[in-house]
Amino acid sequence: MATTEPTHRGRARIAEPGEGIGLDELALATRNHGMPLEALRYDVTPPGLHYVLTHYDIPAVDPGDWSLEVGGAVARPLRLDLDALRRRPAVTARVLLECAGNGRARLEPRPVSQPWLLEAVGSAEWTGTPLAPLLREAGVSPGAVDVAFTGADHGVEGGREQDYSRGLPLAEALRPDVLLAWGMNGAPLPPQHGAPLRLLVPGWYGMAHVKWLTRIEVLDRPFTGFQNAVAYRIKVDAHEAGVPVTRIAPRALLAPPGWPDFLTRERFLRPGPVALTGRAWSGRAPVTGVEVSTDGGATWTPAHLAPADPAHPWTWRAWTCAWDARPGRHELVVRAADAEGAQPVQQRWNRQGMANNLVQRVPVTVRQ
Amino acid sequence: MATTEPTHRGRARIAEPGEGIGLDELALATRNHGMPLEALRYDVTPPGLHYVLTHYDIPAVDPGDWSLEVGGAVARPLRLDLDALRRRPAVTARVLLECAGNGRARLEPRPVSQPWLLEAVGSAEWTGTPLAPLLREAGVSPGAVDVAFTGADHGVEGGREQDYSRGLPLAEALRPDVLLAWGMNGAPLPPQHGAPLRLLVPGWYGMAHVKWLTRIEVLDRPFTGFQNAVAYRIKVDAHEAGVPVTRIAPRALLAPPGWPDFLTRERFLRPGPVALTGRAWSGRAPVTGVEVSTDGGATWTPAHLAPADPAHPWTWRAWTCAWDARPGRHELVVRAADAEGAQPVQQRWNRQGMANNLVQRVPVTVRQ
Repeated sequence: MATTEPTHRGRARIAEPGEGIGLDELALATRNHGMPLEALRYDVTPPGLHYVLTHYDIPAVDPGDWSLEVGGAVARPLRLDLDALRRRPAVTARVLLECAGNGRARLEPRPVSQPWLLEAVGSAEWTGTPLAPLLREAGVSPGAVDVAFTGADHGVEGGREQDYSRGLPLAEALRPDVLLAWGMNGAPLPPQHGAPLRLLVPGWYGMAHVKWLTRIEVLDRPFTGFQNAVAYRIKVDAHEAGVPVTRIAPRALLAPPGWPDFLTRERFLRPGPVALTGRAWSGRAPVTGVEVSTDGGATWTPAHLAPADPAHPWTWRAWTCAWDARPGRHELVVRAADAEGAQPVQQRWNRQGMANNLVQRVPVTVRQ
Repeated sequence: MATTEPTHRGRARIAEPGEGIGLDELALATRNHGMPLEALRYDVTPPGLHYVLTHYDIPAVDPGDWSLEVGGAVARPLRLDLDALRRRPAVTARVLLECAGNGRARLEPRPVSQPWLLEAVGSAEWTGTPLAPLLREAGVSPGAVDVAFTGADHGVEGGREQDYSRGLPLAEALRPDVLLAWGMNGAPLPPQHGAPLRLLVPGWYGMAHVKWLTRIEVLDRPFTGFQNAVAYRIKVDAHEAGVPVTRIAPRALLAPPGWPDFLTRERFLRPGPVALTGRAWSGRAPVTGVEVSTDGGATWTPAHLAPADPAHPWTWRAWTCAWDARPGRHELVVRAADAEGAQPVQQRWNRQGMANNLVQRVPVTVRQ
């Protein structure tokens, strides 16, 4: 088993060429879990198939003891228990979440952290109350710029003991579709998804959707906590400040056709017509198209993309593409585009493996 | 990333000394998932925290189209749809499941397969109908010896294309607590746990509890399929036949105290009294005791073990042990015993990493 040095002060370690996954990365991979890609078949991802990333432990929160504090740069600090929140206007929204580290383990060289391949995604029906009216009731101070959201999850990261905490620009926090959610797919939030209450910031990568929420603090200065200033940044050189990770870049995924080998996960299928299917999304602009290659990216065919559903602007869209599978080995590749551009076919490396949307490649063998 | 050869004819590859986890093992670790050990706090594991292992893909089964066939060496072959099964007498049983490969990734050298550390476990409330009356209605032939259970999951393993299929001795299949289950924790089975119907064989490792069940075949000869004859065997030499994996060996697990480092998963806690807590179980005989060491196994203290609950004979039992944590580094170790013996403190290696119940070790740092 390869030994690994701990990260210090948020400087991620980069794996050596050819270095296998270490026990530390494996400990993350076995406790966090992705969405097996055949679950792309579900419009709404069942709990247990939806991806989960918890930085520390899942905290034991007693909903009867729990309350949410709203304070900082506000005229009227508030404290609300779960009943008080549930008496507020409730909405249910279908929102896709994706981890900012999705695809990290495919980067070369590999940033050492949660080693996602491509499965850190899911789309669920979240029920909660909009945040903006609550902030207005608290009376946000005129000079406020950021809002800090803190969870009950506690641990050490980059050498600093901390409760998980993320800052969000005030303008984003005031968007009407930002929710404080207590329900998932018609049931109470499961423990691993943030029970009793989590934040939902549609369009942003998962790190913004703070789970096990206990405190909302309005700030009259920019938030400088670890998760914004150090952890979730896109940078190539260890010493640069980098740019913050925000909205989800476009991605299409293919539900791998055929059947797998248990261990190697190689895929096999029979010759003949195959309906390739999958999903595509972007958190920054509407998806404008999906293309499929069955020859490793040499040629591309437009997929049929289901129309956007105005009732669900923040979820994925189904796509399908007919393929006449001939015997032999093929590499299937898919890419989505939004108004800002298409997924890259070559990696755009960054040292923390953040917001990487390199195309998916699925080798398959077609045999009689 | 270490390259790995595919397994051939069921001969598992053994990792080289110091070899990291390969992309193939990682692909298994990101799609299957364990129970984060803090979830030992729940008597009944919430879905999504319960461990899942699927050999191939989760199949897309339409419950409306689906039916179960009962055939082979029986007088009256049967075919039942889900409504017919649900009209039969229903029972709910709390049953612990553990993967036979649990702990595999801690073995040295490491058998290359699903790389579980220690988290491949969970306990749920399963609702279904007993199998034995159904077999009696079908009229088992006098010469029958085994019953084969086949699922809808299809793939390649050891070079053989197959539907997942396991044989069970007839005497086990006729036990009154063996169930055909359609519900989990009061809801329909989730897709990843075998919807619409799975087998439950309380006390046996997970491989026996066939998911996405489509066919039950009574056999007048021993079952010789891949999952019994090749995959789930305990053997040290590649060429020996080995012994079949059957019932769950005793194990105690500790919910790691304190808080973790995100990446290294090192644990920290403050000095003072700590209630160490966890669960213990065995599928072969009642647990007779749990012992805890806080000095790496040099000395042992008996834990307080909750009494067995006659209403739930097939689940785990809670245990607790008081510890006065002094500053410094300590290694916590726990071991359970049943009437057949205690967990080993030194590994008993086998080449497929099966039914290994080596003790858990949890290093912790106590600091002010």
